[in-house]
Amino acid sequence: MRFSRMAVAALLVCVIVLSAAPLCAQEKSAGDTMKSLGAKTLAMPCPVWVIGSYDKDGKPNVMTASWAAICCSQPPMVTVSLRAVTKTYGNIMESKAFTVNIPSEKFARETMYFGSVSGKDVDKFATSGLTPVKSDLVNAPYVKEFPLVLECKLVKTVELGLHTMFIGEIVDVKAAASILNAGGAPDITKLKPFLIGPGNGDFYGVGPSIGSMEELGKSVKK
Amino acid sequence: MRFSRMAVAALLVCVIVLSAAPLCAQEKSAGDTMKSLGAKTLAMPCPVWVIGSYDKDGKPNVMTASWAAICCSQPPMVTVSLRAVTKTYGNIMESKAFTVNIPSEKFARETMYFGSVSGKDVDKFATSGLTPVKSDLVNAPYVKEFPLVLECKLVKTVELGLHTMFIGEIVDVKAAASILNAGGAPDITKLKPFLIGPGNGDFYGVGPSIGSMEELGKSVKK
Repeated sequence: MRFSRMAVAALLVCVIVLSAAPLCAQEKSAGDTMKSLGAKTLAMPCPVWVIGSYDKDGKPNVMTASWAAICCSQPPMVTVSLRAVTKTYGNIMESKAFTVNIPSEKFARETMYFGSVSGKDVDKFATSGLTPVKSDLVNAPYVKEFPLVLECKLVKTVELGLHTMFIGEIVDVKAAASILNAGGAPDITKLKPFLIGPGNGDFYGVGPSIGSMEELGKSVKK
Repeated sequence: MRFSRMAVAALLVCVIVLSAAPLCAQEKSAGDTMKSLGAKTLAMPCPVWVIGSYDKDGKPNVMTASWAAICCSQPPMVTVSLRAVTKTYGNIMESKAFTVNIPSEKFARETMYFGSVSGKDVDKFATSGLTPVKSDLVNAPYVKEFPLVLECKLVKTVELGLHTMFIGEIVDVKAAASILNAGGAPDITKLKPFLIGPGNGDFYGVGPSIGSMEELGKSVKK
């Protein structure tokens, strides 16, 4: 997306910037040597989400995935890329549905675990003590304890190579009341999701604000 | 992806967890009412990346995008969703190439600007003072001052609705020497990328580590 919320402000910024001096960003240039690292999946930050699905016998499974993103606004859609070897891949191919469960920092331990073992070998809900809840909208379970859940029906798969892209239409979002802001929307500072950067073995929390879009817009105008 | 780096450790964790008591995660349950928010694009965190492209006359453009992710490891691929109304959409359809430029926090102002105006109305490189560099591998420009760049050739588009998904094969990654760790990989704590959460108008930095995969794995074993 471009930031559609800024549609009105954008025109004003545009006009002012066009009449202003360059932003002097040259001063910020690192003067840094660029090194070629080869063809690798080194983009960051990546989200850390948990995908919920049922197998053909109705057994719930969860796996951690980071190669995932919102991919359309109308209709609202989300994509996640999975390898064919995973339990979740087979589950979604069969059930045509999945959930995206967004953990808070306090569930980092369980989330790491969900990404380190296969549902082919272990019942991850039973061993983690977390609770599967059957969605009343799609044929997939969500994690009761996680504060933000997207319920999705599969609309398309795209074979890419080692990974297959699963594209789901978001039919509902469910959020814990405790993470909502005054306007009723999920607040990232209350939810406290976490992320990873490829090439680094740590999970990271969300840091402090580095400026609102409004503030940053003002600074462009100066 | 599941965390392939953990393939060896995973089996050990699995065996130990299977023989252990449940993780007592029930204690962490929020006891929180789940509210239905409707069919919305409310996943978070979302990355803040800048897409570089040329138009048919070779004029470089950049736009900010957050609905984007790595989507395949072999071959390495990245996806970004764009609306047809954008300059970048037309550029990539024509040039069959794009770059993903990952800004550091210090470029939040320029990144906000790149997401708030259209390349149809303004030369964003000229007004921002940042420098377009022609990739020697694909027909797209990258932002010289940004510390991490993915050079991509378009391999597929997927029409979804208001947004179209562009899938690019990553043919090279270029990184500023200053953001590399001892192993030669980009380090998220040096790069300092930033992110957003839908429903909130702020950019956020990457916070502190909330644990390494190894540490979190150990805690699962207890």
